Amino acid sequence: MIKVGIIMGSKSDLPVMQDAANVLKELGVDFELTVVSAHRTPDRMFAYARGAAERGLKVIIAGAGGAAHLPGMVASLTHLPVIGVPIKSSNSIDGWDSVLSILQMPNGIPVATVALNAAKNAGILAAQIISTADDAIVQNLISYKNSLREKVEESAEEMKRDGLFTGF
Amino acid sequence: MIKVGIIMGSKSDLPVMQDAANVLKELGVDFELTVVSAHRTPDRMFAYARGAAERGLKVIIAGAGGAAHLPGMVASLTHLPVIGVPIKSSNSIDGWDSVLSILQMPNGIPVATVALNAAKNAGILAAQIISTADDAIVQNLISYKNSLREKVEESAEEMKRDGLFTGF
Amino acid sequence: MIKVGIIMGSKSDLPVMQDAANVLKELGVDFELTVVSAHRTPDRMFAYARGAAERGLKVIIAGAGGAAHLPGMVASLTHLPVIGVPIKSSNSIDGWDSVLSILQMPNGIPVATVALNAAKNAGILAAQIISTADDAIVQNLISYKNSLREKVEESAEEMKRDGLFTGF
Amino acid sequence: MIKVGIIMGSKSDLPVMQDAANVLKELGVDFELTVVSAHRTPDRMFAYARGAAERGLKVIIAGAGGAAHLPGMVASLTHLPVIGVPIKSSNSIDGWDSVLSILQMPNGIPVATVALNAAKNAGILAAQIISTADDAIVQNLISYKNSLREKVEESAEEMKRDGLFTGF
Amino acid sequence: MIKVGIIMGSKSDLPVMQDAANVLKELGVDFELTVVSAHRTPDRMFAYARGAAERGLKVIIAGAGGAAHLPGMVASLTHLPVIGVPIKSSNSIDGWDSVLSILQMPNGIPVATVALNAAKNAGILAAQIISTADDAIVQNLISYKNSLREKVEESAEEMKRDGLFTGF
Amino acid sequence: MIKVGIIMGSKSDLPVMQDAANVLKELGVDFELTVVSAHRTPDRMFAYARGAAERGLKVIIAGAGGAAHLPGMVASLTHLPVIGVPIKSSNSIDGWDSVLSILQMPNGIPVATVALNAAKNAGILAAQIISTADDAIVQNLISYKNSLREKVEESAEEMKRDGLFTGF
Amino acid sequence: MIKVGIIMGSKSDLPVMQDAANVLKELGVDFELTVVSAHRTPDRMFAYARGAAERGLKVIIAGAGGAAHLPGMVASLTHLPVIGVPIKSSNSIDGWDSVLSILQMPNGIPVATVALNAAKNAGILAAQIISTADDAIVQNLISYKNSLREKVEESAEEMKRDGLFTGF
Amino acid sequence: MIKVGIIMGSKSDLPVMQDAANVLKELGVDFELTVVSAHRTPDRMFAYARGAAERGLKVIIAGAGGAAHLPGMVASLTHLPVIGVPIKSSNSIDGWDSVLSILQMPNGIPVATVALNAAKNAGILAAQIISTADDAIVQNLISYKNSLREKVEESAEEMKRDGLFTGF
Repeated sequence: MIKVGIIMGSKSDLPVMQDAANVLKELGVDFELTVVSAHRTPDRMFAYARGAAERGLKVIIAGAGGAAHLPGMVASLTHLPVIGVPIKSSNSIDGWDSVLSILQMPNGIPVATVALNAAKNAGILAAQIISTADDAIVQNLISYKNSLREKVEESAEEMKRDGLFTGF
Repeated sequence: MIKVGIIMGSKSDLPVMQDAANVLKELGVDFELTVVSAHRTPDRMFAYARGAAERGLKVIIAGAGGAAHLPGMVASLTHLPVIGVPIKSSNSIDGWDSVLSILQMPNGIPVATVALNAAKNAGILAAQIISTADDAIVQNLISYKNSLREKVEESAEEMKRDGLFTGF
Repeated sequence: MIKVGIIMGSKSDLPVMQDAANVLKELGVDFELTVVSAHRTPDRMFAYARGAAERGLKVIIAGAGGAAHLPGMVASLTHLPVIGVPIKSSNSIDGWDSVLSILQMPNGIPVATVALNAAKNAGILAAQIISTADDAIVQNLISYKNSLREKVEESAEEMKRDGLFTGF
Repeated sequence: MIKVGIIMGSKSDLPVMQDAANVLKELGVDFELTVVSAHRTPDRMFAYARGAAERGLKVIIAGAGGAAHLPGMVASLTHLPVIGVPIKSSNSIDGWDSVLSILQMPNGIPVATVALNAAKNAGILAAQIISTADDAIVQNLISYKNSLREKVEESAEEMKRDGLFTGF
Repeated sequence: MIKVGIIMGSKSDLPVMQDAANVLKELGVDFELTVVSAHRTPDRMFAYARGAAERGLKVIIAGAGGAAHLPGMVASLTHLPVIGVPIKSSNSIDGWDSVLSILQMPNGIPVATVALNAAKNAGILAAQIISTADDAIVQNLISYKNSLREKVEESAEEMKRDGLFTGF
Repeated sequence: MIKVGIIMGSKSDLPVMQDAANVLKELGVDFELTVVSAHRTPDRMFAYARGAAERGLKVIIAGAGGAAHLPGMVASLTHLPVIGVPIKSSNSIDGWDSVLSILQMPNGIPVATVALNAAKNAGILAAQIISTADDAIVQNLISYKNSLREKVEESAEEMKRDGLFTGF
Repeated sequence: MIKVGIIMGSKSDLPVMQDAANVLKELGVDFELTVVSAHRTPDRMFAYARGAAERGLKVIIAGAGGAAHLPGMVASLTHLPVIGVPIKSSNSIDGWDSVLSILQMPNGIPVATVALNAAKNAGILAAQIISTADDAIVQNLISYKNSLREKVEESAEEMKRDGLFTGF
Repeated sequence: MIKVGIIMGSKSDLPVMQDAANVLKELGVDFELTVVSAHRTPDRMFAYARGAAERGLKVIIAGAGGAAHLPGMVASLTHLPVIGVPIKSSNSIDGWDSVLSILQMPNGIPVATVALNAAKNAGILAAQIISTADDAIVQNLISYKNSLREKVEESAEEMKRDGLFTGF
């Protein structure tokens, strides 16, 4: 059953937002993915956000760039937790606009903001939220954390093999 | 007939936004003023923005602070020109969040942004827009500009009288 | 009849400012376009701004980069609404200089500022201003807004066809 | 049963972090609250984060200022979702240090970041996460959202009564 | 004979700009001082800047805040060296707007920018420029530099007397 | 024997820099303290920095604000490690100028930079450097670290006693 | 006779600083040019700055990047006017470090700062300073200003010829 | 005997951090080098930092990007001096996140921060610290400083030979 909805303000955000989909697949969480623009399709945004809980979604991931209003507006329209992904789009001022328009929500309507372009982390966070009531996902998250650790340990071994000195 | 709608995200924005009302009164432009929150009253915002043109409004002035989505969302919901006033609210990061969330709108949905807390300039800009089809307002704007000039000239005279040397 | 004047500080700003001209053409608004530099041709700027209303212009769009004084100075010289386009020129500090020198005008002399490099939005805003007294332009703006919505809906359909899952 | 752990880097952060506790109480979510410093009590932080899931916690809220490492380090030590509250402490550079050290986590270890000093939103977000498996909390969140709406509507009524004109 | 003209955008800038006058007096350089606003009195600015060389001025010091166009516009209207003083005015965004609108002038029209609110340094710089053709001012500048050195040396002595240990 | 020299650009920096002296005293490291200005007493700075190693100093702590050149210039004049303390002085642009002028030294001449106004940390860092060849100081540093830990643990106990709930 | 000294912190700054030399040549002002590093050759810097006035220099142009101390230190060592050119070097943080370390000089020791990488403007400013006592240079500056104006006017003509509409 | 430990958060940081290793080799200081991630291998980080002094290390150099917690956390776990290298990683916001998360450590736990990507300076600083108890390293540092000076002097000679005029 689909528990996570991934939306983005423009199809051009897909190369960034795809990372959320990929990691959710890896962690065993079902999701849907589409384009919803706060500024170009406000009615579609209303319908999406207002209907999300009823359709069974538990978390929404929303990515947008520039004056990024999608995550915050969706959060205003649903009681579900909303994760915001600031995207460094082409005319963004170094990403600061996306970050601040998503992060600095007023009291009462939080958006769980992740790092600039960090759709992967948005996916992991969504899985963590789902895992609070699903032990299978807990196990997947623990395995994922182990794999991160192992990659660093392998890097350390590789550095030794590459002749880079280490005493540790 | 009311041509300008002034809205703000919270009643706490009134001390700033009152300046827009005052200067519109001074310039002879009728206006209305109320609170509309993008995040706390999204339906009210939809109703306000969608009905604005039909009710006879020609320009909307929207002020908001922090992750300020009101001006941009209203602009997405009407074809009227929307003027955005970034407000330096209490937990704002020095006003940067308000400025960037209002200014950096994506292509297709402009917001006419004025300086931080510059509701007075928003009012003047609204009057300038109304004046493009109303010669009486043109005259008021010209008088207003003259009064600005005269105040500077008086300051220069005062400085002379105060014994501050000037050769000009 | 020409209602919108587009000016820019340097011919090198044309690739950005052309977007304003294109969208005005699309929206059925007549315009003129030329180079006027605040710093290199101050007399030409005075003549342009002082004569604009008399020549029938209703709105001026001014684009400039770096310490961008053109929009603000033109606004000081006319009662017409002035739209400022901050341009990210080559030695700009990430565009911050252009944005702040255009946006942060003192009380009394507003500039309707749009996003960095957003000449397209400047054109749309000019058309919105003209449309406050011209119903034909209102219709063009509504059609334009519809076309924006349709493009997002098509993107959503494309994503479905491309095999990207969506439940919405 | 306690589901949310609130920790902060220093007792001086309590005036900010208290807001998270208050809103959780209002929303009917049980929580614990204590001081855990990443830099001054790293062992305590390890013990807290490593034992959190086993003790039954479902979400951790961590607030810190300056080079704020507590939220990110706790996230590295548990699979639970971690909410980070950037605090504008006394020698902070306008809060930018707190925001960036919490928000910009690397791929693999997300922190759900809220606005500067927005502990209240951290509490609401925690309740939203708990609510994904608890319908009673869903009802509380919906009531809370309604109360936000009502307060804005009351403000609008007050403005009318105060003689501030409005046509809406 | 008056060699330095000090101008400022508003009488409210006088508390800052007075420092330029004071240090010029101390260094034996004659000056004039008045208010000239780029945005509220563009004609006065034109007259001032265009007539400055003819009236015998050798240097112009111009202070302004926010979108500070006065120094740059004056520089565009005269071949005299122009010193710009960015002023941190009330609605300035921490002074960044003033600094960038004065500093980031395009190629061809320099403004000699000093630190935020540093009207004293503007005065010293003006004296240094005058001193390139006036040996008496050179002597005054050398004495001034000596007095700065002596004050630091006295501070060091005071610290010793105050019981603060020093081995140097 | 004096091993650490503390210098500052102005006597007005003493309230900040005193913290370095206090913590060095607490950690049992002898120091000297005086005023040396890069800009007002360049010869004194040369003499101080060039003679430091010969006089037996092992580390220099230099604090300065604004365009803070003292730490970097001292580092260019000695082979001793130099610790820089950026000071948020009155006309500083929020401390950014001090931080960047001290931190961003070119390759070849490092300055060990600490946080804005963090003279206490400069003192601890100096003690850590001295401790690399002095086991007594190592013991003092370990005790100091323990005292930091204990204060947090006491805060946690206090919170419990104050009736703030905690399950940890 | 050589009146302007151009120095830079590293030979890698030459591509930027060459512009100062070129425009001085164009304006008929004799200059010298060399490398002087504040951090790598402090003695050379002392000798250069202390001997500059005696060797007949009237103005010094100093360019540097990162924690750029050269312009300010030279200003501390001479009574001549010093022009600072902030250079955006490879590891600079977007040029902010260079700008702030040159601009934000303390009271008493001004540096005439120009825009990021604007060595050309530094050259023009130096010529303006020299021209305060040299009428031939005044004429060259006036011709230069005319040539700037003419280039803009030609651009405007070109745009007309290129079929870009203009009514001005 | 190995006195300096170089660690980095990811193998992808090696191209930057290699500079620290190279300059330590040049200066005759033995070091080790490996990967330790605060977020992906917190236990490894604990073990590394807690065991460092016992294994004979005198200084630790830690490089990391984004929300860079490695240097600060290592500093919390050892009494050794820790040098932090902010790295401008791919999704960093222009390096500001790395700089602020390393620099702005709270009172009690200093990190000796160097410039963005300045691993070379971290290596030199480590050597300076080691040199406080090792005269051979002092000699190497003095030679290194001389070589820096000579390179600048050679550049000055080259410029003369290249026909660039200089009177100095």
